[in-house]
Amino acid sequence: MAGVGLQEIVTALGGELTGEASAANAVRIDRIGPLEGATPSTITFLSSPRLRPLLGASQAGCVIVAPDLRDVAAARGAAIVTPDPYLYFARLTQWWVARAREPVAAGVHASAIVEGSARLGAGVSIGALVVIEAGVTVGDGAVIGAHGYVGRDARIGAGTRLAARVTLGERCVIGARGVVHSGVVIGADGFGFAPAEGRWEKIEQLGAVRIGDDVEIGANTCIDRGALGDTVIEDGVKLDNLIQIGHNVRIGAHSALAGCVGVAGSAIIGKHCTVGGAGMVLGHLELADHVHISAGSLVTRSIRKPGQYTGVFPIDDNAAWEKNAATLRQLHALRDRLRTLEKASPDKNATGTA
Amino acid sequence: MAGVGLQEIVTALGGELTGEASAANAVRIDRIGPLEGATPSTITFLSSPRLRPLLGASQAGCVIVAPDLRDVAAARGAAIVTPDPYLYFARLTQWWVARAREPVAAGVHASAIVEGSARLGAGVSIGALVVIEAGVTVGDGAVIGAHGYVGRDARIGAGTRLAARVTLGERCVIGARGVVHSGVVIGADGFGFAPAEGRWEKIEQLGAVRIGDDVEIGANTCIDRGALGDTVIEDGVKLDNLIQIGHNVRIGAHSALAGCVGVAGSAIIGKHCTVGGAGMVLGHLELADHVHISAGSLVTRSIRKPGQYTGVFPIDDNAAWEKNAATLRQLHALRDRLRTLEKASPDKNATGTA
Amino acid sequence: MAGVGLQEIVTALGGELTGEASAANAVRIDRIGPLEGATPSTITFLSSPRLRPLLGASQAGCVIVAPDLRDVAAARGAAIVTPDPYLYFARLTQWWVARAREPVAAGVHASAIVEGSARLGAGVSIGALVVIEAGVTVGDGAVIGAHGYVGRDARIGAGTRLAARVTLGERCVIGARGVVHSGVVIGADGFGFAPAEGRWEKIEQLGAVRIGDDVEIGANTCIDRGALGDTVIEDGVKLDNLIQIGHNVRIGAHSALAGCVGVAGSAIIGKHCTVGGAGMVLGHLELADHVHISAGSLVTRSIRKPGQYTGVFPIDDNAAWEKNAATLRQLHALRDRLRTLEKASPDKNATGTA
Repeated sequence: MAGVGLQEIVTALGGELTGEASAANAVRIDRIGPLEGATPSTITFLSSPRLRPLLGASQAGCVIVAPDLRDVAAARGAAIVTPDPYLYFARLTQWWVARAREPVAAGVHASAIVEGSARLGAGVSIGALVVIEAGVTVGDGAVIGAHGYVGRDARIGAGTRLAARVTLGERCVIGARGVVHSGVVIGADGFGFAPAEGRWEKIEQLGAVRIGDDVEIGANTCIDRGALGDTVIEDGVKLDNLIQIGHNVRIGAHSALAGCVGVAGSAIIGKHCTVGGAGMVLGHLELADHVHISAGSLVTRSIRKPGQYTGVFPIDDNAAWEKNAATLRQLHALRDRLRTLEKASPDKNATGTA
Repeated sequence: MAGVGLQEIVTALGGELTGEASAANAVRIDRIGPLEGATPSTITFLSSPRLRPLLGASQAGCVIVAPDLRDVAAARGAAIVTPDPYLYFARLTQWWVARAREPVAAGVHASAIVEGSARLGAGVSIGALVVIEAGVTVGDGAVIGAHGYVGRDARIGAGTRLAARVTLGERCVIGARGVVHSGVVIGADGFGFAPAEGRWEKIEQLGAVRIGDDVEIGANTCIDRGALGDTVIEDGVKLDNLIQIGHNVRIGAHSALAGCVGVAGSAIIGKHCTVGGAGMVLGHLELADHVHISAGSLVTRSIRKPGQYTGVFPIDDNAAWEKNAATLRQLHALRDRLRTLEKASPDKNATGTA
Repeated sequence: MAGVGLQEIVTALGGELTGEASAANAVRIDRIGPLEGATPSTITFLSSPRLRPLLGASQAGCVIVAPDLRDVAAARGAAIVTPDPYLYFARLTQWWVARAREPVAAGVHASAIVEGSARLGAGVSIGALVVIEAGVTVGDGAVIGAHGYVGRDARIGAGTRLAARVTLGERCVIGARGVVHSGVVIGADGFGFAPAEGRWEKIEQLGAVRIGDDVEIGANTCIDRGALGDTVIEDGVKLDNLIQIGHNVRIGAHSALAGCVGVAGSAIIGKHCTVGGAGMVLGHLELADHVHISAGSLVTRSIRKPGQYTGVFPIDDNAAWEKNAATLRQLHALRDRLRTLEKASPDKNATGTA
């Protein structure tokens, strides 16, 4: 019989299987899917209160729910009760993939070009047309996808997976269990130049990039090598696509940066921070742990206090924006006019301080 | 005799050839160029009223004009009259390229690595060092440029051209007559993680990317695969360079996004929309058909009504900006002070509502 | 004895070696590093007044200083006195790298695919799996890194170095002594389409890209080919990572653009300009020489006068931002209310003009 039984899932991932026993045993899952559109062979999850009204009518074979929904879910059919349904769902996707995906075959593709001095761990997979320079170390079970390029003396930790077409520059290091997506460039030169009579004199970038364990890096993201020391990405950091990390930056453990973010040279971002899409952090600034920058915001000063920070012009229909934006260019003058009025007011007690 | 005759162009593309017949017959075109700097062997077009004053003195061999300029243009020399000169110009460039460019030779380059189970249509061209995984389907006349990577079970429609160094991930699909530029990554994992005691637990991305017909995708743009379902790019969409499309996004037919745009996960953009350069659309939002977002604007809420929307801090000289930006941080307080004054005003009828 | 003597550095790069002679002679340098953390075998530099208090206690083997610090530095130990310590440092890094790095071996890697009609200069190095199309010219001493792609009839100047995985499109040209980092795409099609009854008709991009001498281009940056003429990057321009340069753009000599910048089609940027990170320049605008755009600012009009220009919403804690942003959407109305109050003011002379 096709599909996966619910008991098999609970055995692997924990949680309490509820609902009428005979019904739950009959369910066979062939797909993880959203609540909307779920079929009797779909397993889904409910983490957003907004979606609760959809629960009763869902055709899903099984719903992963929190304890407070135990009864409502059981009345509907099979359910798995767990303290954090979203986290359970995440682990379910991992288990699902590990179970279903064909494992990558260990070995070095005949077309790969691997320098003799490279050290490859046990069970390593080196894809088609990969180039590995001298002195490279690849940890056990690591996977380097097709068209990969690994520069001289670089090091890749155990179990780390490089998708097709990743560039890891000379002397750069990534730890264990990392995931690096296509087009990523680690270890290009930082942007360093000294002005010299109207021209720019290159500052050779002598450092490298050091990336910790359990780091994921999105497609076409760039992490530059340090000028003198290293650029550092600590354990558990998650970087989305098309992010720019300048030289000498340090990103603290378990911080997460969304797509199109930029972090300029020598900025230091604390642990457990987040930066929303297209947020930018200027150079030489410092963000404390647990600082959260909203999408589209430009950080122009160090932030020492945890919290959410924002700086975005609110979007409006274009005609309204035009009027407000034009007035904004006179805002300081408006403030002065307001002060003048306040001073002239017959009711001085009613006006605030200038 | 070198060059192209005007009659040949009109025969291929339509339009009415005007101007003194003997003169028009003598013109030989060897270049399509702008009005400024046009030579007697240049064909050019006039679509912007701003450029009309230049028409009389232009040395161009032929000018493509709208009907209202027929007489002015004919007085100058050869002209092609057509309802939409800019569109005519676009089609002329296509005809020109089809005529002049050497056709890509069909066949599989000896250095390409193509798994045996891949199905290649008639007249397909596979470039040097391309890697094509098992189960791939390539439609008739498609071109895959050098260094291309096509993942397992991906599908490429007839006549679609991938420039050098394109990555099309596992199970992703692009339709017919597409153009994909170098460095594009289609099908990297979406950015999905569940928080787990201060760490991030990966949500495996189980969906794929489905791209319609007649889609063009600019250099180094990224389109992530969906988490559970697919990320969808409908027919006729045009994406510029360095764009980030998050997982589960849907972009409606014939929408066009300029460079450096970001669209966060699960956003839905309607048909015939445009987003200006570096515009950003936050996740889970919905834009109706015919919504136009100005460059540099951040969309923070769904937009249900067609129109142009903007949210940009107006640029100014730095000193003026500094003053206005500082005042902006007290704007809400200023409004309160204004209210206080209004309440204290001797002429209550003159003041607006608070 | 390991390391480099200070006399050797001064002989190569100039400057005046000061400090007690016997001590200075004993110093052996094995590292260039920052002032903080410098060891007796580190050479460092002092260019920021902010760091002067650290000078006395530094353990550095040698400090590069400006003439006004000659005595302070000499009292501490060995020093090199030079008018511009930062520039000296830049040249020192170059000298250091030239001295220490293994030279790239000349020759064509056995796995490279080079069309017979390509012309390779003396001492050229072509890396593994490089593809060079017909008609290409590579200048003396140029280096093309692994996985490079050079399109038909492209030209690369003497001494220019392409890192691994660079794409240089058909007919595009880069001058001498350039540096191009991984993932760069030069010569993809510009984003040009004519509207045609709700669809987009492609305008074939017939121009190319012309890049001058001494240009550096950061990782994953894109420079599109021109529509009719060429996109032009003049001598000495420095582009950081993930920058988008649209078709027909011209960037004047010795301008520098930071990461994530976008320059839309047909914009003209003068000489000696700078654009901060994520700054955007809209299409068809013109920036005079010596214009400086702050990070995150959108240029929406031509700028004729040198200076610094900014347009950024100031970042604030989220609650404060929300209040100010909401009020900003009524700013024009607030101005009108202020005017009304001014007209009603008993002290007309005290109020400004409306």
